[in-house]
Amino acid sequence: MSNIDMIEAAADRLKGHVRETPLLSSPFLDEIAGRRVLVKPECLQHTGSFKFRGAWSAISALDDAARNRGVIAYSSGNHAQGVAYAAAQHGISSVIVMPSDAPKLKIENTRALGGEVILYDRATESREDIGEALATERGLTLIRPYDEPQVIAGQGTTGLELARQALELDVTEGDVLVCCGGGGLTSGIALALEHHAPGLRARPCEPEGFDDVKRSLQVGAIQSNNASSGNICDAILTPQPGLITFPILQRLCGPGLAVSEQEALHAVALAFLRLKIVLEPGGAVSLASALFRKDQIEGDTVIVVASGGNVDPQIFEQALEFLT
Amino acid sequence: MSNIDMIEAAADRLKGHVRETPLLSSPFLDEIAGRRVLVKPECLQHTGSFKFRGAWSAISALDDAARNRGVIAYSSGNHAQGVAYAAAQHGISSVIVMPSDAPKLKIENTRALGGEVILYDRATESREDIGEALATERGLTLIRPYDEPQVIAGQGTTGLELARQALELDVTEGDVLVCCGGGGLTSGIALALEHHAPGLRARPCEPEGFDDVKRSLQVGAIQSNNASSGNICDAILTPQPGLITFPILQRLCGPGLAVSEQEALHAVALAFLRLKIVLEPGGAVSLASALFRKDQIEGDTVIVVASGGNVDPQIFEQALEFLT
Repeated sequence: MSNIDMIEAAADRLKGHVRETPLLSSPFLDEIAGRRVLVKPECLQHTGSFKFRGAWSAISALDDAARNRGVIAYSSGNHAQGVAYAAAQHGISSVIVMPSDAPKLKIENTRALGGEVILYDRATESREDIGEALATERGLTLIRPYDEPQVIAGQGTTGLELARQALELDVTEGDVLVCCGGGGLTSGIALALEHHAPGLRARPCEPEGFDDVKRSLQVGAIQSNNASSGNICDAILTPQPGLITFPILQRLCGPGLAVSEQEALHAVALAFLRLKIVLEPGGAVSLASALFRKDQIEGDTVIVVASGGNVDPQIFEQALEFLT
Repeated sequence: MSNIDMIEAAADRLKGHVRETPLLSSPFLDEIAGRRVLVKPECLQHTGSFKFRGAWSAISALDDAARNRGVIAYSSGNHAQGVAYAAAQHGISSVIVMPSDAPKLKIENTRALGGEVILYDRATESREDIGEALATERGLTLIRPYDEPQVIAGQGTTGLELARQALELDVTEGDVLVCCGGGGLTSGIALALEHHAPGLRARPCEPEGFDDVKRSLQVGAIQSNNASSGNICDAILTPQPGLITFPILQRLCGPGLAVSEQEALHAVALAFLRLKIVLEPGGAVSLASALFRKDQIEGDTVIVVASGGNVDPQIFEQALEFLT
């Protein structure tokens, strides 16, 4: 089970390898939100998302023998790039199992970052079968994207930084909005805040129609989404909260927030205009919640974790239309 | 005359008000450049460019009586926004004299940041006449964009941060590429490096056809540009190096570099894709020089100061075409 000691140990292992992201702000965003907005841009993290933190944490926590045999992950997105790059930086091999219809750029990026990409046909093959055969054959360790204590610990280092940075600005109370898929980042941050900034409360943010975490928190039991795709926030479309993450979310988080695709895109545009950062829609649902769900938020200051920036130029251009 | 003591004093005055920008990097940019590239993204500074540093430095250096009477600046760009916001944060008034045909968004932003915008007709009026009349009438202090010792000192704080950050990465030798208009940022950084990282050498970067600083350094005397507009890098189109900045540049800088408009736009696109930051073309000529003038650069590591991100969405979309 993940706990604060694991997060602090992960922070020690990440030191000098992870990028400490700043807290950004803009008076223009404050005005829209009706309160001060502080944005932690994890899009500026290595590989363009917070996922590098969890990948580094998990790989660096392995014993030498296991680490030297290499790691494996199933992902076509940010987790793939985080694992591939963290493995390469450790000097070990990584296998990333991706669907053959994944965007070409993501496949190329994952390869260029040092990952061995194995493609499978979604229609006729099972990625788990392929992955298990490879893992057994080569002794690879599977790095799960969120339901894995050392991954949660790594994501939680975001919360350690954030708690310290907020305190430096005398912010000790308020909501911390976090983009939420399976809950690895949100649960890690919630654990860090519990110990280092107990007046700050993590709140998961999701796309409408894929708000499994919000509904699970309301009901008090794990709920699933009806669909698994078909939303522009592809980075955070997960079927349901994790078995490890959900109890943490339930114990520590405030109510979830959900925004529309258009609101997520609008937030991408405002982050471009006012913060000069590049967000993907799934990495902007937290900012969208701060800007467009202000009646559901408490306090004079809201903190926003903007989780990733791996967005296709075409989608970005769609967002920029909000500015013309 | 600007010197290192003034820069360090400016850093003390800026503390807690300026944003310390991180050093970013990407293995993809390293590969294009043929060496390690470290990017200091001043687009993430308050108001979207380094100009806030110089404005804060100059305003905070005034005596109380002068400061309370207010300040004035001539600018339609980044300096205007920096001065307006720094003045507002000091609780004093600012007058910004802008041409009536300046982009509407820039006028609105300057007003929203707290500046009193006075528009003039470029064809029939002189901004200096208008400015001097107002300055005399109200006792306003003029904040020049670069040829002003306290402004140079403020921009030089970028160099103090950079020297410390480079040292933390064991980078003690190499070129520091700086986007250069009138030379305030470049000369400030050069002074800071001279004292804190003498193995790092500042080099001004400009658009081709507007490379007055490059030519002035070659000839050893101030040279002017033939044109004053007509280039996409509008933020750094100045007629000639400053009278205060040039002797500093001449004493401390390596040769200038110049890139085409297309190369600047291409660098904007790569900064979007690989660093997840928003640059304007004039803020990306340093990155373009690192990527596309590699034979003119020395050392295993190059440091790039990306100076601003106030770009129109239409221009940004033009840059994104390099990715499709």
